[in-house]
Amino acid sequence: MKPSGIITLLTDFSTQDAFVGIMKGVMLGINPRLQLVDLTHSVPPQAVLPGALILRSAVRYFPPGTLHVAVVDPGVGSDRRPLVIETEQGWLVGPDNGVLSLAADALGVRRAHHIENTGLLRYPVSQTFHGRDVFAPVAAHLSRGQALESVGQAVDTFARVALPVPTRTPTSVTGEVVHVDHFGNLVTNIDAQLLAAFRTPPLSVSIRGTTIAAPISSYASVPEGTLLSIIGSWGVLEIAVRGGSAATRLAAGVATPVAVAWETRH
Amino acid sequence: MKPSGIITLLTDFSTQDAFVGIMKGVMLGINPRLQLVDLTHSVPPQAVLPGALILRSAVRYFPPGTLHVAVVDPGVGSDRRPLVIETEQGWLVGPDNGVLSLAADALGVRRAHHIENTGLLRYPVSQTFHGRDVFAPVAAHLSRGQALESVGQAVDTFARVALPVPTRTPTSVTGEVVHVDHFGNLVTNIDAQLLAAFRTPPLSVSIRGTTIAAPISSYASVPEGTLLSIIGSWGVLEIAVRGGSAATRLAAGVATPVAVAWETRH
Amino acid sequence: MKPSGIITLLTDFSTQDAFVGIMKGVMLGINPRLQLVDLTHSVPPQAVLPGALILRSAVRYFPPGTLHVAVVDPGVGSDRRPLVIETEQGWLVGPDNGVLSLAADALGVRRAHHIENTGLLRYPVSQTFHGRDVFAPVAAHLSRGQALESVGQAVDTFARVALPVPTRTPTSVTGEVVHVDHFGNLVTNIDAQLLAAFRTPPLSVSIRGTTIAAPISSYASVPEGTLLSIIGSWGVLEIAVRGGSAATRLAAGVATPVAVAWETRH
Repeated sequence: MKPSGIITLLTDFSTQDAFVGIMKGVMLGINPRLQLVDLTHSVPPQAVLPGALILRSAVRYFPPGTLHVAVVDPGVGSDRRPLVIETEQGWLVGPDNGVLSLAADALGVRRAHHIENTGLLRYPVSQTFHGRDVFAPVAAHLSRGQALESVGQAVDTFARVALPVPTRTPTSVTGEVVHVDHFGNLVTNIDAQLLAAFRTPPLSVSIRGTTIAAPISSYASVPEGTLLSIIGSWGVLEIAVRGGSAATRLAAGVATPVAVAWETRH
Repeated sequence: MKPSGIITLLTDFSTQDAFVGIMKGVMLGINPRLQLVDLTHSVPPQAVLPGALILRSAVRYFPPGTLHVAVVDPGVGSDRRPLVIETEQGWLVGPDNGVLSLAADALGVRRAHHIENTGLLRYPVSQTFHGRDVFAPVAAHLSRGQALESVGQAVDTFARVALPVPTRTPTSVTGEVVHVDHFGNLVTNIDAQLLAAFRTPPLSVSIRGTTIAAPISSYASVPEGTLLSIIGSWGVLEIAVRGGSAATRLAAGVATPVAVAWETRH
Repeated sequence: MKPSGIITLLTDFSTQDAFVGIMKGVMLGINPRLQLVDLTHSVPPQAVLPGALILRSAVRYFPPGTLHVAVVDPGVGSDRRPLVIETEQGWLVGPDNGVLSLAADALGVRRAHHIENTGLLRYPVSQTFHGRDVFAPVAAHLSRGQALESVGQAVDTFARVALPVPTRTPTSVTGEVVHVDHFGNLVTNIDAQLLAAFRTPPLSVSIRGTTIAAPISSYASVPEGTLLSIIGSWGVLEIAVRGGSAATRLAAGVATPVAVAWETRH
């Protein structure tokens, strides 16, 4: 796989300070022709699972050979190891704490290597900012065709985040909210494919004591202000309000249970 | 007109999630050499008029052949149609709901085409995210020289936003605030040219019972903390506080009336 | 020194409006092949010193020949002059109000020129938005190799910000917080080199009546929730909480005194 020349960045640094710009400066010093794309820098501070979810939501839309750098790194300076995962579609670069794992599974893992080659780092290596001194320079070198074997030793496993798994009965699927987006839409862990595995469309969706119609095909098919369920752009069940915020309306958030039923409860 | 290779993006997606990055990934998969520029992603959710105003404020500063993609799209998934407008200076791509209309008028409309050519879209086309599946790929194809005729049918008209029009008497112009910027400056719908059409400079500006001096030429000509009027960078009358926020000082916002007078009231 | 083709931008414009995008449009009209990098646009409105500090924190990480444009410009429209400073590593472009001065000293000043050549500006030059009409076009021309002499007259001095200087006794250094970052870390004006000039490591750090251990080498060496001191990525002493916010914990902010002691007080 040839590098595409694109590097994406996802961090919890915010854009209040220049941390993200600094990572880009380091990368451009190594490969001046990069195409740099921000995914988000608003991951809540040190929140590995949300970072992993947002990264997974984005990676499949980039051309093959893209490098994705994700730095949500509460263990910076500890013995957690820096990692490169090669997938069927590109490379993931970041700390070995699970932030890369959901994207890796979504793209198909080929192999993973710990970053050990000190010749690829920026010196002195800070104990607080591996984004600048480890991940940015390694990604930039990989974008120029640096062989993955030369980065460090191959590893058999890497850290994974614990994403809650929905439970299933013959007439229901029960999952939970795993992310709230900017519009207040409640993104669940219930995959469209899981719903499709039932032979018939579900009858209803329940959340916080409220029962909602089965997933509709577009916001525009219901009036403004309607509480609805829909398969959203992540390919999973979302609870939303047309023209409003489901998070506010339902006082719901991450970990709120969501049940999909194929038979009404008696 | 030859495409410049520049695509700008304006949305109400915020940068909390990766929606904007995803649109860029789709574009770069079609045209890897794009120059991508963010205008803003902080348009209030589904607020078409503010989006149209901010887009208009920016488009004239880009080189000819630039593509501007604007996605503020409360009707996504309905029968509102996706649109490309060719102007004297470039192309506008987005939903046919008015968000493109002010920029189109500012640049000079040549022709408009609905997007119908399914060969230019990303599949499957989501019912909730046309930014990714319709507008991004069409803009990227246009940036590579795709002919506008091949995108879809020419249309005679397109949706327009209702921007309030100032009223005029022989001795006054009365308009209103249409936008509040990050500094708390109150941007009105009163154009510099409208004021210039009077033979003499105005005597005063009134807002919320407060009378302010006629427009001054620069912030620096008054002391810190002064409430002032000025022709701002949008080319329209603004009410501002030097070193402060006029919105806060006057408790004013969008729709607050603003009157310019050539004679004092008795 | 050859321009690298990279221009960075730092402003207090926020990204709510399109001001930053407009500056990029102007630049790309002059040099379409630029690599544009945002440092931050969240400098507090018209806060020159914070802007100068963030700019200084970033510039050394960019390749030689990079242009840095910084627009925090409370005096726009006054007689404060627009400035280009050539350093050992690149150029700084912005108002002559001190915002460039810390970065200039960090990179090593070669020479400075006021911007006077009206042929390099965008017309008409607004009295409120020199970012668009003065700094963006001048930087873009410099990126294409425009000679610095042709920009305007050389000047002997330029405005500097007053950064508080730590006081030193044989057994202590007393400085203060100069910046609070997104994580709530308290960045001080106490340089790592100043601490290293003592022959032994310090015994303790005090802030707001609380005594903290001497600087540790990484966050990961203390338990979650620990109040700690560390040499951060800026190369200066920071007060932080592992996995939390020191600003919140200590109710501390810019100007809070911080003392480093080599002997315990009796």
